Amino acid sequence: MADDIGPLVDRIVKSDADGVPADKEALLDQLEDLEFDQWALLLEALPIEERIAQWQLIPDDMKAEVLVEMRADARLSVINALPTDVLEQLFGHLTPEDLIELADSLPDHLIDLALRQMGQKQRQFFEHSNQFNENQIGRYADHNLLILPQNAKVYDALRLFRRDIPECTDALFLTDRAGRYAGTVPLKSTFGAPGHISLVELMDEHAKPLPAETSLEESADIQEKSDYVLLPIVDSKGMLIGRMTIKDGFQILRENHESENMARAGLSEDEDLFSPVWKSSMRRATWLGINLLTAFLASWAIGLFEATLQQVVALAVLMPIVASMGGIAGSQTLTLIIRGIALGQISKGNLTPLLLKELAVGGFNGVLWALAIGGIVAYWFSDLMIGVVIAVAIALNILAAAFSGVLIPVILDKMKIDPALSGSVILTTVTDVVGFVTFLGLGTLFLI
Amino acid sequence: MADDIGPLVDRIVKSDADGVPADKEALLDQLEDLEFDQWALLLEALPIEERIAQWQLIPDDMKAEVLVEMRADARLSVINALPTDVLEQLFGHLTPEDLIELADSLPDHLIDLALRQMGQKQRQFFEHSNQFNENQIGRYADHNLLILPQNAKVYDALRLFRRDIPECTDALFLTDRAGRYAGTVPLKSTFGAPGHISLVELMDEHAKPLPAETSLEESADIQEKSDYVLLPIVDSKGMLIGRMTIKDGFQILRENHESENMARAGLSEDEDLFSPVWKSSMRRATWLGINLLTAFLASWAIGLFEATLQQVVALAVLMPIVASMGGIAGSQTLTLIIRGIALGQISKGNLTPLLLKELAVGGFNGVLWALAIGGIVAYWFSDLMIGVVIAVAIALNILAAAFSGVLIPVILDKMKIDPALSGSVILTTVTDVVGFVTFLGLGTLFLI
Repeated sequence: MADDIGPLVDRIVKSDADGVPADKEALLDQLEDLEFDQWALLLEALPIEERIAQWQLIPDDMKAEVLVEMRADARLSVINALPTDVLEQLFGHLTPEDLIELADSLPDHLIDLALRQMGQKQRQFFEHSNQFNENQIGRYADHNLLILPQNAKVYDALRLFRRDIPECTDALFLTDRAGRYAGTVPLKSTFGAPGHISLVELMDEHAKPLPAETSLEESADIQEKSDYVLLPIVDSKGMLIGRMTIKDGFQILRENHESENMARAGLSEDEDLFSPVWKSSMRRATWLGINLLTAFLASWAIGLFEATLQQVVALAVLMPIVASMGGIAGSQTLTLIIRGIALGQISKGNLTPLLLKELAVGGFNGVLWALAIGGIVAYWFSDLMIGVVIAVAIALNILAAAFSGVLIPVILDKMKIDPALSGSVILTTVTDVVGFVTFLGLGTLFLI
Repeated sequence: MADDIGPLVDRIVKSDADGVPADKEALLDQLEDLEFDQWALLLEALPIEERIAQWQLIPDDMKAEVLVEMRADARLSVINALPTDVLEQLFGHLTPEDLIELADSLPDHLIDLALRQMGQKQRQFFEHSNQFNENQIGRYADHNLLILPQNAKVYDALRLFRRDIPECTDALFLTDRAGRYAGTVPLKSTFGAPGHISLVELMDEHAKPLPAETSLEESADIQEKSDYVLLPIVDSKGMLIGRMTIKDGFQILRENHESENMARAGLSEDEDLFSPVWKSSMRRATWLGINLLTAFLASWAIGLFEATLQQVVALAVLMPIVASMGGIAGSQTLTLIIRGIALGQISKGNLTPLLLKELAVGGFNGVLWALAIGGIVAYWFSDLMIGVVIAVAIALNILAAAFSGVLIPVILDKMKIDPALSGSVILTTVTDVVGFVTFLGLGTLFLI
């Protein structure tokens, strides 16, 4: 994406360490060309003290945008370091859309400050958006749209176009006198249409407005399938409150992807490269604690076989192999099923054939790896029986993994828990416990 | 996304099992409303025999599109089941863009067949796209663009608009006499411009064409930042060969996300819910094999301490806890660093402060969990010393995890290996081995 940030980071840190002013000149030249999103990436990539130093170099008219673009933790680190008068000046230039983006990470007095400096209409826009929560598209509606009354004619549209057409616009919207959404007119159908024709006649009957309460993810889906690059957003009374563009959809997709990746490791999406140690430690501790419970469960399972382990220490050496093969095989099934659930493809109707197929794949790989590992282990410990025991345990654990890999995400989904987040922890707990118990249990039966 | 597919799957499977024709009527009604992407999802959600049965119900004019939309494995399962004459008929209606999408999963004779049935111009489009590989945007260029010669005037543009403006279009492109890209004219600047004005005068000086060799991911980034919803694609000679729209960017993003998720579990992105057992098993076996090597490495590390384990069996019971806490802590650091690398934010300049910060977080959580686990274990085994040993081992392993979590992805990235794919396997191998060796090593020193 922004491969250009790395070398800049090096220069900044280096020139600060050496204090070489010649280097600084060249650096300043390069910084001048940065766009606001690159500035945001650059600041995030710097340790906190450096961030504040570089902040001064951002052109004043870009500062608000850079702040909006930054991730929450990094943004707060800058806001906390700025003196009140600088903040006051900064927040005098916020649009309602910017303020909404910043709202959750701003202290109340700063929000009030920004609101006081806004015009009445802007303030209304903010209040309106602020009714919706962070997962509703209405919160992020922007107000850059072409609107005409429903009795307008083609020449009204053409007059409007001549003034300005906002970015990402291929339709205009009609409203009734109360401001309720009345229809979508594709821009292209106005070309060549006689000036006196009513816009209502050019309306696209299939176009549907997006309810403001729609979730972000669903909005992006609807946007992707729409024939337009922007959608009108309406509130529950049918009032046209703003628009969503396909670029917003793009951003939603990227942010979802990022926060999913972070959440999978128990991290907050706000987490910043240089989040304060204390904050970052506390956040991560929770996930470590959850994991600890599952690890103790595995330990407890092993503890059941202490007497066996004392007699056959090879079992202790080999048991991680059984657990780990089950974990990997299970996560393969899990991943496939989670994708299916996300696409809405899994239901009662195909659950049985799916389970059978995964058990067949598990059976195949179970037997394959049971033979391979059993052979290696029998040779390693010069003991055929221990080879047989690990082979059977591995085959059983891979089968159990296939079974759990299908059922765990389906059950979680039924319970309205996102399987993409917790599925993997639960699955590996199952494969650990099943792996240890079958392996050590078989060992107890056949090796003592 | 498509929550509507699940109930349909149920109905199809159920009505087939019961053979109730009344149900079938209602089903057919519902199937009639499906869009081609929903058809693709539905077919993918069905076991292979059912797929073929339902395939017949797709309206003929949608079949090619449904095939293009399906994932490769599922698509092949349908193609393989269709008789030659049906395929011949189907491939008589492919556009060059469709054929490109299908090309990798079609046998050569079917590609030839489709090409023979195309017009000369279409065939040329295909040949042209086919020069580029699967990760180059040129391969997916579509040919739905507004092009005018560079000496055209505003009234030429208006005449063109009246004929048709393709979806996702907010600019037209000028070419020279040889067909080389000469410039981008935003649609909106032609409104209200006098008819005799040259389009060259309305050109956007900042607009840049997209080289056909650009990678898909980079193309999506460029598209996202562009002021337009479509970009002109040019080949190495500067010829305008097609366009990329922001919807293509959307799709690239979704597919990248999906294949990243799949690859993380060692799955191919083509993998289908009902891929043949044999194929699916063989693909997954590779990943299990790689994992087996790392599991044997861990076993070998444990094996070094066989004598100790024989004397203090509690070590065998507890060792998974040490390994697993390290693995989780390490994956948190790893995830943060991988995101930083993807955003281009990690470089020599911030590596040291980043390492220090992660070590500080690791130190904090290391001490916190060392105390907690040490306490629990000392109580569990009524042995203070084993509590001390596990506490120290956990603190050390979490620190090692922080260290590896930063360095492994950075080193992989330097070696041009994607850390998002292999980082996690390498990391857990390190935390397993370090965890087992420190815990069992300390046990050997202090518990015997």
